Amino acid sequence: MSKGITSRNDDYSQWYNELVTKADLAEHSSVRGCMVIKPYGYSIWEKMQAVLDKMFKDTGHQNAYFPLFIPKSFFSKEASHVEGFATECAVVTHYRLKNDGSGNIVVDPEAKLEEELIVRPTSETIIWNTYRGWIQSYRDLPILVNQWANVVRWEMRTRLFLRTAEFLWQEGHTAHATAEEAIEETERMLEVYADFAENWLAIPVIRGKKTPNERFAGALETYCIEALMQDGKALQAGTSHFLGQNFAKAFDVKFTSKEGKLDHVWATSWGVSTRLMGALIMSHSDDAGLVLPPKMAPIQVVIVPIYRSDEELEKITAYVKDLSAKLRGLNISVKYDDRDTQRPGFKFAEYELKGVPVRVAIGARDMENGTVEIARRDTREKSTVPQENLDQYLVQLLDQMQKDIYQKALDFRTENTRKVDSYEEFKRVLDETPGFVSAHWDGTPETEQKIKEETKATIRCIPLNNQQEEGVCMVTGKPSTQRVLFARAY
Amino acid sequence: MSKGITSRNDDYSQWYNELVTKADLAEHSSVRGCMVIKPYGYSIWEKMQAVLDKMFKDTGHQNAYFPLFIPKSFFSKEASHVEGFATECAVVTHYRLKNDGSGNIVVDPEAKLEEELIVRPTSETIIWNTYRGWIQSYRDLPILVNQWANVVRWEMRTRLFLRTAEFLWQEGHTAHATAEEAIEETERMLEVYADFAENWLAIPVIRGKKTPNERFAGALETYCIEALMQDGKALQAGTSHFLGQNFAKAFDVKFTSKEGKLDHVWATSWGVSTRLMGALIMSHSDDAGLVLPPKMAPIQVVIVPIYRSDEELEKITAYVKDLSAKLRGLNISVKYDDRDTQRPGFKFAEYELKGVPVRVAIGARDMENGTVEIARRDTREKSTVPQENLDQYLVQLLDQMQKDIYQKALDFRTENTRKVDSYEEFKRVLDETPGFVSAHWDGTPETEQKIKEETKATIRCIPLNNQQEEGVCMVTGKPSTQRVLFARAY
Repeated sequence: MSKGITSRNDDYSQWYNELVTKADLAEHSSVRGCMVIKPYGYSIWEKMQAVLDKMFKDTGHQNAYFPLFIPKSFFSKEASHVEGFATECAVVTHYRLKNDGSGNIVVDPEAKLEEELIVRPTSETIIWNTYRGWIQSYRDLPILVNQWANVVRWEMRTRLFLRTAEFLWQEGHTAHATAEEAIEETERMLEVYADFAENWLAIPVIRGKKTPNERFAGALETYCIEALMQDGKALQAGTSHFLGQNFAKAFDVKFTSKEGKLDHVWATSWGVSTRLMGALIMSHSDDAGLVLPPKMAPIQVVIVPIYRSDEELEKITAYVKDLSAKLRGLNISVKYDDRDTQRPGFKFAEYELKGVPVRVAIGARDMENGTVEIARRDTREKSTVPQENLDQYLVQLLDQMQKDIYQKALDFRTENTRKVDSYEEFKRVLDETPGFVSAHWDGTPETEQKIKEETKATIRCIPLNNQQEEGVCMVTGKPSTQRVLFARAY
Repeated sequence: MSKGITSRNDDYSQWYNELVTKADLAEHSSVRGCMVIKPYGYSIWEKMQAVLDKMFKDTGHQNAYFPLFIPKSFFSKEASHVEGFATECAVVTHYRLKNDGSGNIVVDPEAKLEEELIVRPTSETIIWNTYRGWIQSYRDLPILVNQWANVVRWEMRTRLFLRTAEFLWQEGHTAHATAEEAIEETERMLEVYADFAENWLAIPVIRGKKTPNERFAGALETYCIEALMQDGKALQAGTSHFLGQNFAKAFDVKFTSKEGKLDHVWATSWGVSTRLMGALIMSHSDDAGLVLPPKMAPIQVVIVPIYRSDEELEKITAYVKDLSAKLRGLNISVKYDDRDTQRPGFKFAEYELKGVPVRVAIGARDMENGTVEIARRDTREKSTVPQENLDQYLVQLLDQMQKDIYQKALDFRTENTRKVDSYEEFKRVLDETPGFVSAHWDGTPETEQKIKEETKATIRCIPLNNQQEEGVCMVTGKPSTQRVLFARAY
């Protein structure tokens, strides 16, 4: 296996593709647009799932499972929803294959479905059709349900993790008695996502609302968290939607209130996907490979022995056995790589590529001196530290690295968020120093569309708690009360 | 909600359907053959997943994810495999919908796929096509991978959990350098399944091999665990397949051995599914509802206060707060149901229906006497026990219940496993006292087929470590060296 990857400066996109493949995170499958998530990549996704799942349960949600297939007629019931997804749907039309008599396997034309089934691109329609049977009275509310599932959106141009025809995600779907309660839920889950992104993935995010143009198909309000990648492009890392009564009306879901009145139910939905893998990779990694914040690393500490004789190896191994036990007792995942088929330099490069946060190298001289050599993956700094209390040292180091990796990303974002006040400056900044651009906009979809067409930048969000400030739209000169955040985006 | 369900004796099948629905485990969706797994049912499935996942990882496996879709041409490469699955495949033929101009959403005929995609009924083909890129030398082996996923098999007659068009499962797919290693893996995973069934689900199982007729499509040997339901029908609860080199040959997966020879790779696959939910329900439940072994119960202890005044409730609640904290500290999941909208009798029936193993009722008199009333779900016995050391008492009770529930199922199976030596007796036993029937068979598929057609009983398995015994086939009188296990089955 060749370890070298393209540098970010030479070709960021190529760097990303090579990193994902060579670090054994994922690969393209033979099925158009679908990826294979390899064991190492999947183990990071499992960590994400475990943390998020606990957060969902801690906020009162339960998991459930709804069908993969959605009848076409359901799909069509909410007008803007079907409009948003119709052009990217995988459609099941038949339920049987047969041998054509000359040894070829063909679709059996007699096994045509009366109504076509859509492979879910998202599950609002099938879930709200189900909720109709679950909800009669206010006593049945709220319903706080989440689903972990695969979904399919037929994409023409795909990138591993970032944009694939099939991806894995979770989708929360909640039902409430009042608009206020539903909006509160929408905001609560946005905050859960932001907390997860910042405190676990070490990715600083802007919490905001989408413009009407960028809303989820069928939502009254879409909240989002937006992250900045190292190439200065933004990435939407999670969304939480206030759906109003749209789906309840489309699927006739009503409840009797405490006061005995019949009303439609209020809805939210919210989701994050394997796209977060792309965000995690692009936020922190470098030309040597993946950089993982310690809380997300399947292996947090790798120990490599450096020896010339079996006797030296035995001494090192005895020490490592003791150290590993201590580290596991402190909930640190540790791997001892004593393979004799690879040289230490090869191993060093491999674990750098895979983003193992801390490497501990131990040689015969170290054993004499009571020291080890530590290498931090994020800064690539090496240092010699005492074996005494090494376990406690590593706990603190991992904790510090988690903070440092977040701070580095935050500093990068701060440096790459620029206020501009003219459209000329806007275009120049976008081309010369990519990042977030904060500018006044007149609030119309027409101006938003013009900017998008002319610069490929979109309004990523209107930040929550945005500072109110008199100004004029950089394009039309019309009055504006606040700046919004633009960027080119994934 | 009406709590009463049909009794098992009146109509076992109806009892099952009502239990699954009324205990909030699952329901039929509006999509033909697909089910909705409701939060309570899903929480049991999550417990199954967590235990199995740990068992897989403890035996060296890693999770990964492969595409939902399989190109038709891949599917056709292993002849017996496609023959086994062709008649029950959901087929994706188009990738876009459109508005037909008069407001109807229709499949866009211009978006027809060049090659149809099959929604995976199982993933051997797409996975072995992927493994070709992962395996060059013996150093790349073994590959020990598992996938948690949804699969689709178009079934004409469906039953919740037992037989649905879409179901959830895990599928292990491993690659090995030698046949011996692959067989060892096949047997290891069968033992993992048996261990899980017996020690967690409290379901005794027979470990055995399938006859050639009943093998998985593409396997050289199918191992299985077979359980006996309360109506005397058998249920296949898990399978582990030795696939030989069939898939490696179909997908051209070769490796260079230590000796430098090029050879095809050896394969296994193994899986259990949401069908286990059906097995769990039918093994232990009764006419009052679900009976769950404590290790599988989302709520293990429910506490119901019985009071006439707020003052009485306050005293009880103070005690329960303390007790609950102690129980949680002992890893017991506990729920305190102090709803004032429902009477105790209603709550008792509800928790019996949902299979909560232990109910603790506490009244004002109990508080005076320092006692509580305990009701065991499995035996429905009530007893009054001291509050002193109640936490420890409950730990022991739950442990004892887990054992008792298993023993009861084991006794039932022992009583309902009968040796017969003539075909007449065989038919009479099947009709009068359903269960396993142990009989001599001449080893031919023809006789097996004749028995199946005439009695609806199939050979469930040839038990592992079967006693060798001279005999004659009950149908043909031809010589036989061992008995095999017959039953009517789900």
